[in-house]
Amino acid sequence: MEPFSQQFQQRLLEGDKRIAERVPPRFDADFRARLYDLLRWRRDVRRFKRTPLPEGTIERLIAVACLSPSVGLSEPWRFVLVENPERRARIRANFEACNKEALEMQDPDRAALYARLKLAGLDDAPVQVSVFSDRGTAQGAGLGRLTMPETLDYSVVTAMHTLWLVARAEGLGLGWVSILDPARMAEILEVPKDWIFIGHLCMGYPVQEDDTPVLEREGWEHRHAPEGVVVRR
Amino acid sequence: MEPFSQQFQQRLLEGDKRIAERVPPRFDADFRARLYDLLRWRRDVRRFKRTPLPEGTIERLIAVACLSPSVGLSEPWRFVLVENPERRARIRANFEACNKEALEMQDPDRAALYARLKLAGLDDAPVQVSVFSDRGTAQGAGLGRLTMPETLDYSVVTAMHTLWLVARAEGLGLGWVSILDPARMAEILEVPKDWIFIGHLCMGYPVQEDDTPVLEREGWEHRHAPEGVVVRR
Repeated sequence: MEPFSQQFQQRLLEGDKRIAERVPPRFDADFRARLYDLLRWRRDVRRFKRTPLPEGTIERLIAVACLSPSVGLSEPWRFVLVENPERRARIRANFEACNKEALEMQDPDRAALYARLKLAGLDDAPVQVSVFSDRGTAQGAGLGRLTMPETLDYSVVTAMHTLWLVARAEGLGLGWVSILDPARMAEILEVPKDWIFIGHLCMGYPVQEDDTPVLEREGWEHRHAPEGVVVRR
Repeated sequence: MEPFSQQFQQRLLEGDKRIAERVPPRFDADFRARLYDLLRWRRDVRRFKRTPLPEGTIERLIAVACLSPSVGLSEPWRFVLVENPERRARIRANFEACNKEALEMQDPDRAALYARLKLAGLDDAPVQVSVFSDRGTAQGAGLGRLTMPETLDYSVVTAMHTLWLVARAEGLGLGWVSILDPARMAEILEVPKDWIFIGHLCMGYPVQEDDTPVLEREGWEHRHAPEGVVVRR
């Protein structure tokens, strides 16, 4: 079924079995245990197999990501599928320039480790998606974003996070590349001037799966206990 | 089990059944169908029952949210549980002031509708959590955020989105209030000066469940087809 077909949209929005009755689903302990598994095994993947994704996969996953929340129902997410080899090369060069600068900011001990981390899957990932926030959208008529226009960008982030989770649920990995110059990304991809760059996503089948972040495995940083991030007022 | 106990943390991070063997989970079509249900029935809830949540629920859900991705494993999310009635009243007043201004920006036809939308669950929600991004954190040693420090805030948004999904999976609703003055929120809640306000969350049992956004039900805005947000380069 075509990911952008009317029929697919209807199934996605209404669900297969509840088109007529619209009965709210009940989620049980078993589903929650699997959901926690998904959250625990979602990783920021850097090493991908070069195996292409089945035809239509990324479009289908993006359609699901569009179910994400957005301020005032503005749906400001814009997905740029980067397919042109020359543009990919320019994004890689953008990453290399920014990464070099980032290396110089680190102390020498950490820099060697940092270099080893292979921060980008830019060379191998079969799918690359640059995600932007349309700060100029009229959709939603400005509702909810007068005091905080950045909530448009936050809406885009929820869609990227949904994409991440549903990709993982299909055995795919996603890596978010942030060591990039946002203005340069907009130039390379020739997007409208109101679009703000949020992040560049590499997607594909991961070389390995893990429940521990690569930065933790490599001794860069470790996760901290949640009680340290909660205060009461 | 105490949500912040060592034992709970270990179960959360390692999973009940895979502590020793760490076998990657396989997600099947049935799980994905339920996950899509969750995404489709997640709503921005504005009307809550006043029923309190079971003891320890919010702490437990926050602990799960801390499994979310963060730039350089910086974990910059900070959750402020707003319990003090006087502070809650001041947040409500902040909302009312900003909402009045937002109303004046709307055309008169829309303003009446806007007023009817009951944008805040601030009066009824038993749990209120203000979420901040710690822009001053040393965790992660700046990795990945040199060119885009706002990725710290984006990390916080992924944690808020996780909280939203796992709350919904327990039959709870969450409403994100953004019509607030961020600087005033920091004052009211007396947080450290490096903390940036991201959003204020109301949580509790929803009065009703729906698969259609309230803004769509009320005729304010409707969701658009995904093909309109995808471009190829």
